[in-house]
Amino acid sequence: MDKVSYIDHAEKWKKEFVFSSPTTIRFSETDMFGHMNNVSPFIYFEEARINFLKEVGLFTNIHHVTGVPVVADLQCDFHQQLYFDQTIQTYVKAVHVGSTSFDLHYMVVNEKKEIVLTGRGRMVYVDQHTGKPQALSEEMKQKLAAYTA
Amino acid sequence: MDKVSYIDHAEKWKKEFVFSSPTTIRFSETDMFGHMNNVSPFIYFEEARINFLKEVGLFTNIHHVTGVPVVADLQCDFHQQLYFDQTIQTYVKAVHVGSTSFDLHYMVVNEKKEIVLTGRGRMVYVDQHTGKPQALSEEMKQKLAAYTA
Amino acid sequence: MDKVSYIDHAEKWKKEFVFSSPTTIRFSETDMFGHMNNVSPFIYFEEARINFLKEVGLFTNIHHVTGVPVVADLQCDFHQQLYFDQTIQTYVKAVHVGSTSFDLHYMVVNEKKEIVLTGRGRMVYVDQHTGKPQALSEEMKQKLAAYTA
Amino acid sequence: MDKVSYIDHAEKWKKEFVFSSPTTIRFSETDMFGHMNNVSPFIYFEEARINFLKEVGLFTNIHHVTGVPVVADLQCDFHQQLYFDQTIQTYVKAVHVGSTSFDLHYMVVNEKKEIVLTGRGRMVYVDQHTGKPQALSEEMKQKLAAYTA
Repeated sequence: MDKVSYIDHAEKWKKEFVFSSPTTIRFSETDMFGHMNNVSPFIYFEEARINFLKEVGLFTNIHHVTGVPVVADLQCDFHQQLYFDQTIQTYVKAVHVGSTSFDLHYMVVNEKKEIVLTGRGRMVYVDQHTGKPQALSEEMKQKLAAYTA
Repeated sequence: MDKVSYIDHAEKWKKEFVFSSPTTIRFSETDMFGHMNNVSPFIYFEEARINFLKEVGLFTNIHHVTGVPVVADLQCDFHQQLYFDQTIQTYVKAVHVGSTSFDLHYMVVNEKKEIVLTGRGRMVYVDQHTGKPQALSEEMKQKLAAYTA
Repeated sequence: MDKVSYIDHAEKWKKEFVFSSPTTIRFSETDMFGHMNNVSPFIYFEEARINFLKEVGLFTNIHHVTGVPVVADLQCDFHQQLYFDQTIQTYVKAVHVGSTSFDLHYMVVNEKKEIVLTGRGRMVYVDQHTGKPQALSEEMKQKLAAYTA
Repeated sequence: MDKVSYIDHAEKWKKEFVFSSPTTIRFSETDMFGHMNNVSPFIYFEEARINFLKEVGLFTNIHHVTGVPVVADLQCDFHQQLYFDQTIQTYVKAVHVGSTSFDLHYMVVNEKKEIVLTGRGRMVYVDQHTGKPQALSEEMKQKLAAYTA
């Protein structure tokens, strides 16, 4: 955790998460090395990200709004091996909420509450039709902030 | 091969295939049992199916035609284990071409030309807007027949 | 349901299921046609199959027993489209329990209890080291039978 | 490309790549938003990474050596949307080759040679049995360096 560029103070960083989403690691998400495949965290991040955005109200009525949050980048640090059938909890929080974008941070813990994966990724709020960045409303910004302790 | 319901005469069945599409088994398509995961054949079937439909002309200009081929059912028989990095060839042919539907048969061979997987599935040609079965044109039927020896 | 070869009497067939396992359809399990990709049912079948086998006791202590259930074939019938974020319930039951093999049947229902997918597949109980079929114990057969109404 | 932390001089960075591996985007790797799903780049990175490591000699005879390269972190920047059936080329190079670890950088280009994805990730060379970092031999370091222009 010490070497992870997007984590300043590990204890503070951990405590800020309030939203989480559970997943159980599937057999098809393992590989011949016997543990969770390196692609799988991004499946869990996406699942938790969408659950978070739905909770915040940024994924609702997606066909009736012009704006949609788009992934600009993604990263994951592997702190501990994960295995088939483990139940993990993926925490998500928004940081650096700007006028048209925000970062999401991810923290995945195992059954013992040990941090097994961490990650982050920038989301840009874009107009579905033009593909250009669109302003986040004050209400959206407040909602994003409300899910960070 | 003897017990597979959709294969009458194995030798005749094999010889009828003329179209094929190559794939190399990815690391992420294996599982902790050390070989190709049981879900993976359906990824290869879909890839070969779309390549076949494109070749036949049933997947071209998909936004400009009302008809689209839809999967009604799928099945796969596992004859031999497959492993990471094996290069397989997936053969596809159309059988039982009817007025609004046809079956696709699949035969996957390994580097030694041994049959490792077989499969089949019914495709229904439906109107994209209504979702109802739509007649295959004579030209489509002829094209489908042309890719069977 | 009328044309599905492995379903004799639809009402009787449905009532025999007692075990089920829930799943929510992920965004990454959809495709550009806007609904659940055709590969995805086999992910859900595998997840439910392993949950079933664990419940029955055929997936426990897998490293300490010589026998392991292996998929010989798989099939799926698509009765109704499925979409992102739908929560489905996958029912599993064992039929045709023989000396070294058994069939698993699958029934997937949506939130309205409508049948959206059905399937089946033969499992062969094999010796992990030799790869040859191995006899199911009487206890295993009884357990498999116990999960069918 | 200007804001990507692991790219100092874009032109220089691009020219250093000598190894690449081709892939065609599968239908099952798209999602309901109509383009390549955000999880898919990590499938392509893994495929290209293993092809690179095989070429370099770090993935050969994997059962007979004690050392194995393990992913410590992964990241991807999305520069341009990708769609079904596009053929992409994934370039890989090793940078920061240290005593027990190295970074891999990834550059994905489309048919027009435009950069659509970039990425990086640290690999740690670990002892398979103890899980602890193991020294890269001089030969390995030279091979890794040989695949960078």
